[in-house]
Amino acid sequence: MMNLHGIYPPCITPFTDGQIDTAGLAHNTARWMTTGLRGLLALGSNGEAAFVDEDESERVVATMREHTPRDRVLLVGTGRQSTAATIEATRRASRAGADAVLVLTPFYFKSQMTPDALVDHYRAVADASPVPVLLYNFTNVTGINLAPDTVALLSQHPNIVGQKDSNGDVGQVAAIVARVAADFPLLVGSAGTLYPSMMVGASGAIIAVANVVPDLCVRLYDLVRAGRHDEARILQRRLTPLAVAVTGTYGIAGLKAVMQIAGYAGGAPRMPLRPVKPEAVVVLQRLYEELVSGS
Amino acid sequence: MMNLHGIYPPCITPFTDGQIDTAGLAHNTARWMTTGLRGLLALGSNGEAAFVDEDESERVVATMREHTPRDRVLLVGTGRQSTAATIEATRRASRAGADAVLVLTPFYFKSQMTPDALVDHYRAVADASPVPVLLYNFTNVTGINLAPDTVALLSQHPNIVGQKDSNGDVGQVAAIVARVAADFPLLVGSAGTLYPSMMVGASGAIIAVANVVPDLCVRLYDLVRAGRHDEARILQRRLTPLAVAVTGTYGIAGLKAVMQIAGYAGGAPRMPLRPVKPEAVVVLQRLYEELVSGS
Amino acid sequence: MMNLHGIYPPCITPFTDGQIDTAGLAHNTARWMTTGLRGLLALGSNGEAAFVDEDESERVVATMREHTPRDRVLLVGTGRQSTAATIEATRRASRAGADAVLVLTPFYFKSQMTPDALVDHYRAVADASPVPVLLYNFTNVTGINLAPDTVALLSQHPNIVGQKDSNGDVGQVAAIVARVAADFPLLVGSAGTLYPSMMVGASGAIIAVANVVPDLCVRLYDLVRAGRHDEARILQRRLTPLAVAVTGTYGIAGLKAVMQIAGYAGGAPRMPLRPVKPEAVVVLQRLYEELVSGS
Amino acid sequence: MMNLHGIYPPCITPFTDGQIDTAGLAHNTARWMTTGLRGLLALGSNGEAAFVDEDESERVVATMREHTPRDRVLLVGTGRQSTAATIEATRRASRAGADAVLVLTPFYFKSQMTPDALVDHYRAVADASPVPVLLYNFTNVTGINLAPDTVALLSQHPNIVGQKDSNGDVGQVAAIVARVAADFPLLVGSAGTLYPSMMVGASGAIIAVANVVPDLCVRLYDLVRAGRHDEARILQRRLTPLAVAVTGTYGIAGLKAVMQIAGYAGGAPRMPLRPVKPEAVVVLQRLYEELVSGS
Repeated sequence: MMNLHGIYPPCITPFTDGQIDTAGLAHNTARWMTTGLRGLLALGSNGEAAFVDEDESERVVATMREHTPRDRVLLVGTGRQSTAATIEATRRASRAGADAVLVLTPFYFKSQMTPDALVDHYRAVADASPVPVLLYNFTNVTGINLAPDTVALLSQHPNIVGQKDSNGDVGQVAAIVARVAADFPLLVGSAGTLYPSMMVGASGAIIAVANVVPDLCVRLYDLVRAGRHDEARILQRRLTPLAVAVTGTYGIAGLKAVMQIAGYAGGAPRMPLRPVKPEAVVVLQRLYEELVSGS
Repeated sequence: MMNLHGIYPPCITPFTDGQIDTAGLAHNTARWMTTGLRGLLALGSNGEAAFVDEDESERVVATMREHTPRDRVLLVGTGRQSTAATIEATRRASRAGADAVLVLTPFYFKSQMTPDALVDHYRAVADASPVPVLLYNFTNVTGINLAPDTVALLSQHPNIVGQKDSNGDVGQVAAIVARVAADFPLLVGSAGTLYPSMMVGASGAIIAVANVVPDLCVRLYDLVRAGRHDEARILQRRLTPLAVAVTGTYGIAGLKAVMQIAGYAGGAPRMPLRPVKPEAVVVLQRLYEELVSGS
Repeated sequence: MMNLHGIYPPCITPFTDGQIDTAGLAHNTARWMTTGLRGLLALGSNGEAAFVDEDESERVVATMREHTPRDRVLLVGTGRQSTAATIEATRRASRAGADAVLVLTPFYFKSQMTPDALVDHYRAVADASPVPVLLYNFTNVTGINLAPDTVALLSQHPNIVGQKDSNGDVGQVAAIVARVAADFPLLVGSAGTLYPSMMVGASGAIIAVANVVPDLCVRLYDLVRAGRHDEARILQRRLTPLAVAVTGTYGIAGLKAVMQIAGYAGGAPRMPLRPVKPEAVVVLQRLYEELVSGS
Repeated sequence: MMNLHGIYPPCITPFTDGQIDTAGLAHNTARWMTTGLRGLLALGSNGEAAFVDEDESERVVATMREHTPRDRVLLVGTGRQSTAATIEATRRASRAGADAVLVLTPFYFKSQMTPDALVDHYRAVADASPVPVLLYNFTNVTGINLAPDTVALLSQHPNIVGQKDSNGDVGQVAAIVARVAADFPLLVGSAGTLYPSMMVGASGAIIAVANVVPDLCVRLYDLVRAGRHDEARILQRRLTPLAVAVTGTYGIAGLKAVMQIAGYAGGAPRMPLRPVKPEAVVVLQRLYEELVSGS
């Protein structure tokens, strides 16, 4: 049984001249491996998976696998709009080295994505997948919600082993935890609610800001686990401004800019995303320095 | 300085033949006073304030005051659409015995309710109010959000002494707590997120389910304050189903039906609300009994 | 049978030093009566009904009635949150001179406002009302929608004689017209879609911009009725910018500012609304002059 | 200059045993060519483009081109999430025979899709495309809106020759038409508002129901063009129920079921979409027969 508890970055995909910067990705991966991160997520939203083709995806996974020892977990995002394409992407990710896959709900035809349709989709993927599957719910991107009752039903499938929920809705986190078995881990995707989410039973997080300050995120996780609530709350508050800046305010372009500041390979996102403006880099630099200088 | 920390019910207003049942209200109030509730909220949403006229409102407050000793807090909802009507309602509530008033954001002209307009409104009310004022944010009802920065600004007014936030958004609770002084209490209005909200700094709650199981709500509050997290989480999970049933699923009519089952004065809501169907009463009875029998 | 077809302004309520300016209101009414308007709506949203108390409401209606001959239609907005208060307001409006009342859907408890609850509410009001009742649907304000099927059902009540729909959704206008009898008029509340709404069967409009340029609105109505489509489309396009400015962009404060420019009594809105800034007055003056100079 | 005015179906992609049924597609195309359709859209939403890979896409376009004479217009949907993938798909579609491409706004990172980002994206695509480009706005799918001002700006690019807008918002159709040159055609994607949309200046439509009743859709278009308003309104009302059933209520699965009933190649959609239930087929058959028997 894979232990999924802990902190993961949804790893950015660095580009140089629009092409995947495999050297940069290897550098980032190796550096992440010097921290307390439980593992990595390749090709999530922050990895610009929506902009990376199937061959490139395989290259990204292979590169990261090479620098990720087997006692860490390499998750790979393989959600596609069709069930067949999701299965195909899952198989390729598995061959390229994924320990497990993270499958975003399909969402192109929102009104047709009933609980029944989602259950059939996930079961088909889980049946076909050579590796364990994690559900992935992210309403801001998809416009649909994977309801706690649907998660509970799917959690009984032997090859569905956990969930990521990025909605930042702590009530829903509690509702899911209350409906699934104790060994079905729920990882949250919203750094600003990591502390309260863990207090209601989340098992960890896959959060953008862990790309750039992995050790601080792991420390917050450890403080909560140790019941050191006052310190946890203080660290949660300190982390939130940068976390919000690299997701809501400036998005991936902002995250990549901070990565660069922190000595990771960052670079520009692919179009239609646009690099952040110089003013934003100044703000991000200040937020980053305030955070790390205080630690 | 008024100590507002603790649990309050947003008290229902019982009606008999469509008229205010003052005897029932007195009975309820006296019974609530035998519990560990910090105080009561008269004429909130659950008090059907939107359906109660100004004279009736005065009667409700006077009745509740009579049975609420001065060491408990009697809050009164006095938000109206216009600033002038809000001030007038606030003055009447104060004369009738309110210790403080809870003022919902005006919301008829949503697109015009800019932060500036809200700041001017609350300052005018707080300047004119003989008693302290609490801000009240409830986006499900109003369609607008009172942003943390606006709360922070208003919290500096000497006669604005706290806030109720009913959005159930724990991230926003944390954001507000991070921006206001330590002695500015934030009471939440969503029972399903009471535990995590307190973990990020909420000072208590004004929650519908406290009308009917006040002592269980107070016990949850006490467990959190005592750092007894495992017990708190268990009680939170046990409370949530009934809490959801008497707000989201069945609303005030459902709450009143459970009140009746529990020996409080309940009765039917005013039209256009409608009494719950007999099937719903069965469900509510079961939820109530499961909750209290386990305690 | 009352003929409701035509154009109405939802009349602003002028205030002087915060009090109702009855002289100004009489002046406006008399001037409106020199135009081709079919009638007037007192105490709609644009009349700041949400900010006007019951005694003031009676005064507004009486003042307008005095200057509105019996061959024009005086509609009065009497929607309140409770059914009982709506009936009471309807009776007072009737006594003060209303020819018919316009009843906004109650909306405080949105999730409980099922089609059944709305049907019961409107039937109770229509049964009790001494004058004919018009339904009023305005989702931007209420957060709920009065569905075409519900309108169809209610249109069979002998004392429910028409509807105002302010959603600006031409497809829904067509859907309603297709479900009601030919003599059940639908008046729209969105000036920007007046022309296409009439093309699918709307019988007229109650629109803010008709406060200030009533004759242009009536001319558009007449052009459509006469099948002069090219001229209608051109006038529709010319009217839209000012119509949008006095509703969406600047709201009632903007409308009142243009009224003043056009020689009507305007004044400031009541708080929490705020007067428009001087820059906005310049924009509004330009939009108004461009519109009237071209006519 | 390509004349785009008229009616197009967003052609379904028939599958047999999950594979593209090219014979069925050829059959459908040949049959559509016996009608008054101006042209066809391959690989729109209704073509399940989201579920069709790049090689299959090329096959679909080539098959349809083979049976579409050069005096009809073959549009191909080529919107992808990244600018580079959109350009690549556009080039392949062009080589396979597209007369023009229809490019849905990218939408994965909704909050970052500012007007500036959309302008840069469309300009890059239009600069690189060997064939003319049409903008495509569909907020129900994307969660973002292509604002009239952005359309106006982009309409000045020499290789951007028109737009499809599927929002069903007649006011926005009018706003766009008012801002673009007279020779920039706007095709709507909502059958239920075809008549009023044309009345405010739309040049035609790309609508699901035209897959199955192309001649009725063309007749409606012709009636509007001829100024035969009463007949147009009647036909619009008759068309709407089936149009709503094959989009909102039952979606593509419903559309494919009706195609089958009408003698076209239909089949099941790809997962996660699911075939309609037998009860739905009965409803759809009735709607279809009522519509065609009355014509």
